[in-house]
Amino acid sequence: MVTLTTDFGLKGPYVGAMKGALFSANPSVNIADITHSIEPQNVLNAAVILAEACPHFPAGTVHVAVVDPGVGGKRRPIAIETENYVFVGPDNGIFTLTLGREKIKRAVHLTERKYFAGKVSSTFHGRDVFAPVAGRLSLGLDPALLGKEVKRIAELDMPKPRRERGEIIGRVLYADSFGNLITDIPASCIKPSVAARAVVCVKGTVIAGLSRTYSDAKPGALIALSSSSGFVEIAVNGSSAKAKLGAGPCEPVVVRFG
Amino acid sequence: MVTLTTDFGLKGPYVGAMKGALFSANPSVNIADITHSIEPQNVLNAAVILAEACPHFPAGTVHVAVVDPGVGGKRRPIAIETENYVFVGPDNGIFTLTLGREKIKRAVHLTERKYFAGKVSSTFHGRDVFAPVAGRLSLGLDPALLGKEVKRIAELDMPKPRRERGEIIGRVLYADSFGNLITDIPASCIKPSVAARAVVCVKGTVIAGLSRTYSDAKPGALIALSSSSGFVEIAVNGSSAKAKLGAGPCEPVVVRFG
Amino acid sequence: MVTLTTDFGLKGPYVGAMKGALFSANPSVNIADITHSIEPQNVLNAAVILAEACPHFPAGTVHVAVVDPGVGGKRRPIAIETENYVFVGPDNGIFTLTLGREKIKRAVHLTERKYFAGKVSSTFHGRDVFAPVAGRLSLGLDPALLGKEVKRIAELDMPKPRRERGEIIGRVLYADSFGNLITDIPASCIKPSVAARAVVCVKGTVIAGLSRTYSDAKPGALIALSSSSGFVEIAVNGSSAKAKLGAGPCEPVVVRFG
Repeated sequence: MVTLTTDFGLKGPYVGAMKGALFSANPSVNIADITHSIEPQNVLNAAVILAEACPHFPAGTVHVAVVDPGVGGKRRPIAIETENYVFVGPDNGIFTLTLGREKIKRAVHLTERKYFAGKVSSTFHGRDVFAPVAGRLSLGLDPALLGKEVKRIAELDMPKPRRERGEIIGRVLYADSFGNLITDIPASCIKPSVAARAVVCVKGTVIAGLSRTYSDAKPGALIALSSSSGFVEIAVNGSSAKAKLGAGPCEPVVVRFG
Repeated sequence: MVTLTTDFGLKGPYVGAMKGALFSANPSVNIADITHSIEPQNVLNAAVILAEACPHFPAGTVHVAVVDPGVGGKRRPIAIETENYVFVGPDNGIFTLTLGREKIKRAVHLTERKYFAGKVSSTFHGRDVFAPVAGRLSLGLDPALLGKEVKRIAELDMPKPRRERGEIIGRVLYADSFGNLITDIPASCIKPSVAARAVVCVKGTVIAGLSRTYSDAKPGALIALSSSSGFVEIAVNGSSAKAKLGAGPCEPVVVRFG
Repeated sequence: MVTLTTDFGLKGPYVGAMKGALFSANPSVNIADITHSIEPQNVLNAAVILAEACPHFPAGTVHVAVVDPGVGGKRRPIAIETENYVFVGPDNGIFTLTLGREKIKRAVHLTERKYFAGKVSSTFHGRDVFAPVAGRLSLGLDPALLGKEVKRIAELDMPKPRRERGEIIGRVLYADSFGNLITDIPASCIKPSVAARAVVCVKGTVIAGLSRTYSDAKPGALIALSSSSGFVEIAVNGSSAKAKLGAGPCEPVVVRFG
């Protein structure tokens, strides 16, 4: 089982070429697309989406993520083996959020060219490096054979939500296709005992309490709730919080206890 | 074999998370995406697309459909076994059109939590309820084990095309990606013996007769024909009837015999 | 293994219906989507994308391509067996570029209706002809059994890049999702020995030399390089050449040696 998370889009030949390379390495591989619609070259966006989706796959899954503005340059191609998965992609921070939730066993710099395509381009390592390697890993190849161990994996410089004078200050990580705004603030910060006097503030708007599900609000009303992954989420019942608030990724969000 | 029909879109983590849950339940499941681009929260749109696509899958397929504005609220999660398939999703009418063409054997309210994810969120039953259940069904689980029988399945309030003074009055169900307008009027209503004097009226425009295929019209000309599923379809050879007529779902369409 | 390249889009029921027909013909078929987002009825666009993606699939793959404005009309449904693959689709030139890179063994006009769906519509041969045939081919059916041999396969009228007074004159074939412009000029035309004095001209802009990868240019700067398939590509490091130049398919591109 191999998953794919890329910014290749769905119109061009790149997704197909990469799947072809995977099947060439392992004709019976099972491929699951997480998404190919990451914003072009937005490594943070990929890091967020991958971290949300990947924990639901069975142990042993190989997760390939390719948002790779530095392809062919100095950034290293890597594979990271954790207790549950193997991750394959550029060493540019794309696995930052995911690895924060996984126990790392080993990371290797992909240097063994015998596991790559016969000819490696300078501009498409998804097809020529990551897919062939992932195909081999899905056949059971030991990641240790792929190259030398990497001591330090690149990380995105991501601010973490912080507590300040009793408030929790975080931000929007992404807007989903419904326009729900998912933040980086764990919903567990708002314990049931204090939920009644908690307010969530975003773009000058104050939302009282933490609801259970969308339909707890009136149609068209703003609501804060726990996202399906356990983070504070801001939504509008039957509509788009993104559109209503004009807010998107990086928008500050504050939880206060009044 | 499991198919997926959702309004999750292709940018976020939800499709990936749901596939992960499916593979966790059945690592060798074969997943076919029908679409994840149903208009957000548009149950009717999902009902139409599912009904068009699902009959072409082999018997035994499990069809999961999740357009679920009431998730976590009162609407029941259900599974419906028909002679050919098992359908899994919210009991909100999403299967209305499909079930009109299938012979129902049993419907059950999904209550047996042992077939769900370990932790069930209030906002993402696609991942936590429907995918795990569908995965188990694809392994051969008897739907009767999933919960108590449901006597009445929710139905969308969909007007059916009606005959009135010799006319047939229906409406557009959806516009496809070419801009063809597919209606709810069976093309069989226009028998060969009367086709020569039949006209199809939409948005004040009158189209004579029922053609066989797109290229029977001149490029740019409006045409009525039988859709690939046997309904009256309005098209423009080489272009978009949706754009030319400014018409979309629910637009009235009348067939007259002059 | 069967790949799909169509202009069906992702919103309607057509992709699902076609996959259903494939699974009905071969329940254990492995399907890889190359793309369903070819521009509606743009056979050239499909020819380009298919040619780029298909060579990366393992030998024996069945490639189905359906951009088929003439469906149900005079154009023939065909299957073409090459040394590596079998191609299935309308005989409208969609395989032009691909076949220029493959050694053809046999082409047949699909006439044996026993390999089609029980009922064949006039408007959806993807579902009723090509998918059932591809499913059977993926099970090992001999293409020769599908119909009579075709002596001449339709070709798109595609100008080839030409040399003129020491210049090479070609054009943009497509813009990928990053806005990179991929041309039809083989990068091998610009040999290392002359690369230093080569310039690539497009839309009145002159780009010096052939770079190795995107990050060789400053952020925001135009660059010419070899595409991942070995053609001259025009890009902007970290941004879109398509947007910067206002250029797209068919835009003339000239390589000069100063």
